[in-house]
Amino acid sequence: MRVGVLGCGNVGGALVQLLAADAQAIAERTGLTLEVTRVAVRSTARERSVQLPESCLTSDAESVANDPDIDVIVEAIGGIEPARSLILDALKSGKPVITANKELLANVGAELVDAAVAAGVDLLYEAAVGGGIPLIRPLRESLAGERIIRIMGIVNGTTNYILTRMSEAGASYSDALAEAQTLGFAERDPTADVEGYDAAAKCAILASIAFGAKVVAGDVYREGISGITSADIAYADRLGYVIKLLAIAEQVEGEVAVRVHPAMIMKTHPLAAVRESFNAVFIQGEAVGDLMLYGRGAGGMPTASAVLGDLIDAAHNLRSGGSGRASSPGRATLRSIDELRSQYYINLEVADRTGVLASVATVFGEHGVSIRSMEQDDEESGEARLVFITHIARERDVQATLHGLRELDAVHSIGSLLRVVGSE
Amino acid sequence: MRVGVLGCGNVGGALVQLLAADAQAIAERTGLTLEVTRVAVRSTARERSVQLPESCLTSDAESVANDPDIDVIVEAIGGIEPARSLILDALKSGKPVITANKELLANVGAELVDAAVAAGVDLLYEAAVGGGIPLIRPLRESLAGERIIRIMGIVNGTTNYILTRMSEAGASYSDALAEAQTLGFAERDPTADVEGYDAAAKCAILASIAFGAKVVAGDVYREGISGITSADIAYADRLGYVIKLLAIAEQVEGEVAVRVHPAMIMKTHPLAAVRESFNAVFIQGEAVGDLMLYGRGAGGMPTASAVLGDLIDAAHNLRSGGSGRASSPGRATLRSIDELRSQYYINLEVADRTGVLASVATVFGEHGVSIRSMEQDDEESGEARLVFITHIARERDVQATLHGLRELDAVHSIGSLLRVVGSE
Repeated sequence: MRVGVLGCGNVGGALVQLLAADAQAIAERTGLTLEVTRVAVRSTARERSVQLPESCLTSDAESVANDPDIDVIVEAIGGIEPARSLILDALKSGKPVITANKELLANVGAELVDAAVAAGVDLLYEAAVGGGIPLIRPLRESLAGERIIRIMGIVNGTTNYILTRMSEAGASYSDALAEAQTLGFAERDPTADVEGYDAAAKCAILASIAFGAKVVAGDVYREGISGITSADIAYADRLGYVIKLLAIAEQVEGEVAVRVHPAMIMKTHPLAAVRESFNAVFIQGEAVGDLMLYGRGAGGMPTASAVLGDLIDAAHNLRSGGSGRASSPGRATLRSIDELRSQYYINLEVADRTGVLASVATVFGEHGVSIRSMEQDDEESGEARLVFITHIARERDVQATLHGLRELDAVHSIGSLLRVVGSE
Repeated sequence: MRVGVLGCGNVGGALVQLLAADAQAIAERTGLTLEVTRVAVRSTARERSVQLPESCLTSDAESVANDPDIDVIVEAIGGIEPARSLILDALKSGKPVITANKELLANVGAELVDAAVAAGVDLLYEAAVGGGIPLIRPLRESLAGERIIRIMGIVNGTTNYILTRMSEAGASYSDALAEAQTLGFAERDPTADVEGYDAAAKCAILASIAFGAKVVAGDVYREGISGITSADIAYADRLGYVIKLLAIAEQVEGEVAVRVHPAMIMKTHPLAAVRESFNAVFIQGEAVGDLMLYGRGAGGMPTASAVLGDLIDAAHNLRSGGSGRASSPGRATLRSIDELRSQYYINLEVADRTGVLASVATVFGEHGVSIRSMEQDDEESGEARLVFITHIARERDVQATLHGLRELDAVHSIGSLLRVVGSE
C-alpha cells in the first residue's frame, strides 16, 4: 500500500517516523505493507527531524492527493483550506482518506462524509477527538447497536491541566495558565483552548457520530474556564466536587443538545480522576450503561498512533474489498441551552448587612429556582460571599434569576455560575 | 441477516430483547436488517422473560449451528462443550460466530481462531473480556499499529466490589464477600472470582490479542484476594495506595509475562478510581502512551450490547464481502514470575523484643532485597507488626527472603506479600 502524507509537522512527522520504525512488525501482524511514497510539505528545503528520501518530498500537495500511484491519503495539514479541497480530490479519485483535522470535520464534516459515501471509500478520523484514545471507532462500531444517551468529555488537555493545577496546587488561574504555557501545553494565545472553541469542535464531531446528526462547531453552546477562580475551586472541593471543562452531547426528547462549559462533578465520578493534560470521554448508553475511554488527547506520537490504526483499517478494507462504515448524517434538531435542566452553583458577592439573604432568596423564589444549600462567608469589611447550590432547575429560570439578582443594590457582583453535572 | 442464537440465558436473552427493541433503529442507521430466526435453548418448555415465537425455539443446538438458512451464529451457552463443537461446526459451514465465552477462548481460543481463519469468516468476542467495554476491537484495530508494552486490567467486578467495600466502608473481607453475595455480585461458591481464575482467563485472552501469542488460562500466574486483610487495606491507604486485583500482561525482553494478583497501586493512578463492580483496562503503548477503557464488565445488557456490536460488524463484513481481521496467534515464550522486578509490600508479625528488626533486616540484605521504608506498630502484648516497602527487587529474591524469614523464631507469621504496581 502506497501512502501519501499531506503535511509533515507534529502529527505527519510522527506518523512517518512510526511507519519507518514499525512497518515490518505491522506487515508481520497484519499482512499489510505500508510504505510512505510521497510527502507534501510547505517547503522542501526545511530541515526536519524525520529522515525522508529527497524524492519523496514535494511542495505540491495537489499532485500527491491526485497521484494515481498512491492508494491512501493521510491529511495532516490542519485548517480548512487547502485541506478540504485536497481531501475532496482524493476521495473523488477513489482514495481513502485519514485525517485528524478537527476544525475541518467540525465545520464541513458532512460534506466530506457525503463525498466518501458517494465514492464508496473510507474517511477515517479517529485522531480528531481525544488524540490516541480509541473513541470514534468504538462509538461507530462497538456501540453500533447502542442507543447513546449522553457523552461527556474532557477533550481539551490544556484546560484540564490548568484546572488540575488550580485544584491540586492551589494555583490561581493566571499562574496555572502561565505554567501550562511554559510547559508547552498552552499556546501563547490560549483563546482556542481556554474559551472552549477547541472543545466545541470536538463536541460537534462526537455528537455527529453518536447521534448520526449534522452538528457543526457553531451549534455548540460554549463557555470557557477563564472566569473560574480559586474560590470556586475551593468551594467545589469542600462540597465534594471538582471543576472540569466538559463537552457534553446528549439526546433529549428527540433533540440534540451540545454544549461546552466548566462543570462541577462529584469526586467519585470517573471523570473527576482525569488529571493533568489527559483526556477522557464518558459515555452513557441505554444497554451498555456507563463507559469511559481515557488517554492522551494530544501530542504527535499518540495522535500518529491513532492515524496509523485508521491507516491499517483503510488498507485492510482496500485489500479485502470491504467498504467503510461511513454513512451520511441526518439533520439534527438542536436543543437550546435554555431548556437545560441541571443543578447550579452560584457565587455572589453581597453587602454584609441584615436582610440581604432574604432579598436574594426572594429573587430565586420568584423564578421558581429552589435552593438546596447555601453558605455565607464573611469577606473583607462590608462584604459577604453567598454560595448557593440549587435543586434541579431550568437554565432559563436560572438566567432570569441572575438577571434579577443583578438589579439588587446589595448584590455587588455575580461570580461564577457552574452547572453541576450528574444531576440532570 | 438471519441470526441463530445458541443459549437464551442472561446474555442470550438480553440480546434477543435488545434486537427486538432496536432492530428498526439499527436498520436505519446501518442498513442492516438483523432478525433472530432460531434460538437454541436447554428446554423449550421453560418460561422465559423474552417473548419469542414458538417456531423460533429448539432444544437442538446443532441444528441451529448447521442451519444453511442462518447467516450468523451467536454462542451464549458458556463452558467448553458443546460450545466448542458448535462453534467449529458453524465456522466450517462458513458462518461468522460471535461469542462472549471467556472460558472457551482462554483454553481453546487458538483452535477456534485457526478454524475462523481457515474458513475466512469472522470470530468476534468483544464481550468476553470487560463485558460492554469496547476493548478487543480497539486493541485489534485502533491499536493495530501500536507496540503494546503492558496491559493492566481490573477485569473481575466481584473482587473489585469486595476490595472497594473493604477500602471505603472498612468492611472485613468476609463481610464484604457476604455483602457481594447478597447483592448477587458474587456466586455462592466465589472461588472462580476471589481466587483469580476468572481474571486469569481474561488475562490470557488479552495477552493473546495484544501480543499475537498463544496464551491460555493455565499459563497465567495467579493469586486471589482471599488473604487480603483490613490491615493491608489500612496500610495501603496510609502509604498512598489502594489494593486492586490486577490482570497484567506485558512483554519483557521478547517474552510474554502474564499474571493475576492483588497489587498496591498509587491513589493518583486512573485504575485506583475504578470503584465497585466496574472494570477497566489500562494499556501502555509505545507511541500512544497511557490509555484506559472503563465500564460495566458484566451483566446481561452491557454484555449483550457488546455482542450486538460484534453482530453488526460481522453482518457488515458479510454484506460487503470484507473478511474479518482474525489472524492465527504465534507461539509465546512465557516469562516466569520469578523474573518479575517490582517493589513489594511485606507485612510481618514478629516478637516485640530488641534485635528482631536487625535480624529481619539481615535476611533482606542476604538476598539483596533493599528496604525503601519500614513501619513498626505495637500489637497485642509481646507482638509487633513490621510493614516493609522494598525498592525494586526480583520476585525470586523476595521469595527467598520470605523463606529465610519463616526460619526466624522471632517471625510469628508472614501476612500479605503485595506487589506495588507502577514501579516496574
